[in-house]
Amino acid sequence: MAYTGGSEIERLIQLMARLPGLGPRSARRAVLHLIKRKDSLMAPLAACLQQALEAVVMCEQCGNVDTSSPCAICCDPKRRQNQMLIVVEDVSDLWALERAGVGPVRYHVLGGVLSPLDGIGPEDLAIDGLIARAADFCEIVLAVNATLEGQTTAHYITDRIKGLGIKITRLAHGVPVGGELDYLDEGTLSQALKARTSF
Amino acid sequence: MAYTGGSEIERLIQLMARLPGLGPRSARRAVLHLIKRKDSLMAPLAACLQQALEAVVMCEQCGNVDTSSPCAICCDPKRRQNQMLIVVEDVSDLWALERAGVGPVRYHVLGGVLSPLDGIGPEDLAIDGLIARAADFCEIVLAVNATLEGQTTAHYITDRIKGLGIKITRLAHGVPVGGELDYLDEGTLSQALKARTSF
Repeated sequence: MAYTGGSEIERLIQLMARLPGLGPRSARRAVLHLIKRKDSLMAPLAACLQQALEAVVMCEQCGNVDTSSPCAICCDPKRRQNQMLIVVEDVSDLWALERAGVGPVRYHVLGGVLSPLDGIGPEDLAIDGLIARAADFCEIVLAVNATLEGQTTAHYITDRIKGLGIKITRLAHGVPVGGELDYLDEGTLSQALKARTSF
Repeated sequence: MAYTGGSEIERLIQLMARLPGLGPRSARRAVLHLIKRKDSLMAPLAACLQQALEAVVMCEQCGNVDTSSPCAICCDPKRRQNQMLIVVEDVSDLWALERAGVGPVRYHVLGGVLSPLDGIGPEDLAIDGLIARAADFCEIVLAVNATLEGQTTAHYITDRIKGLGIKITRLAHGVPVGGELDYLDEGTLSQALKARTSF
């Protein structure tokens, strides 16, 4: 192991390199950046990490991460009036929908998708919790990714819920806003033509 | 500001996004990655950051970062026997040379390069400290980057040191090991031809 200034720095680099999007090289750069900004960045980051470590919990209702359980979304009275539940794979999808401003909806985070090859079955996802909550809603939107595993998971959930008489929907397929037809795959284009709307 | 699960998480994302190589999107991904690995990654990272914050200091002799001052490199008896000093712009360059295994040398970190346009003059760099140390060495290698600012800085340091009768050298220019001629710029190729060695 080459010298990088003491075991604390070396260990910090190793831990930073385990973050997604950072390799050994960018982890070294990030750590040096931190050391040079001890007061303005490193100290606040250390304090904030410790606070988040103590405060952040998983919402027992929806699987979201927040500083309270049930989370702020599950507790929001405006959202509780709305009978729409959006099912997502991951908390990052929930954040993406919130950034898109989809309105006062509630969510259910599955924590992944069915993937027999990786040994991930229904018992590894928050599907039982979803079935238990489902009866409280009029519509369930399956906002899983448009991958094979995502669609398999959507079909599995539909099979489990359909007896309850709840409306089950999914996100529309089509041309991304700002997208060019020439760069789109055939599957998306053909779906977009099938689902065309009047102008 | 869109919802991202409580102020601690939001603040953590903002701080992470200030690291080099991480934007808002990858910072969100990194924070979610941390939250999902509270025990295995987030807690060790918080503890390690706090330890590094307390332990890491800048070496008063060479400008390196380490957990002691003078740093482990400056104190190493084997390196103290060797009269070669390598001058680098930044600690990251020192780490790079150590990874390259350049032998038991000592370093001097300038903390940047001369850049009149950015208002960086000799007094902003550790050049006075270098002059003060220079007499203890037989050879000073100016391992600054091969940029205009780096070369200007090298010339300035040479002017200041040359009266002391110390050998001043710089890194060789040439074809990178494993590099292809076709992809090299003309300046490097012409330098590599001028500095050709017998086969």
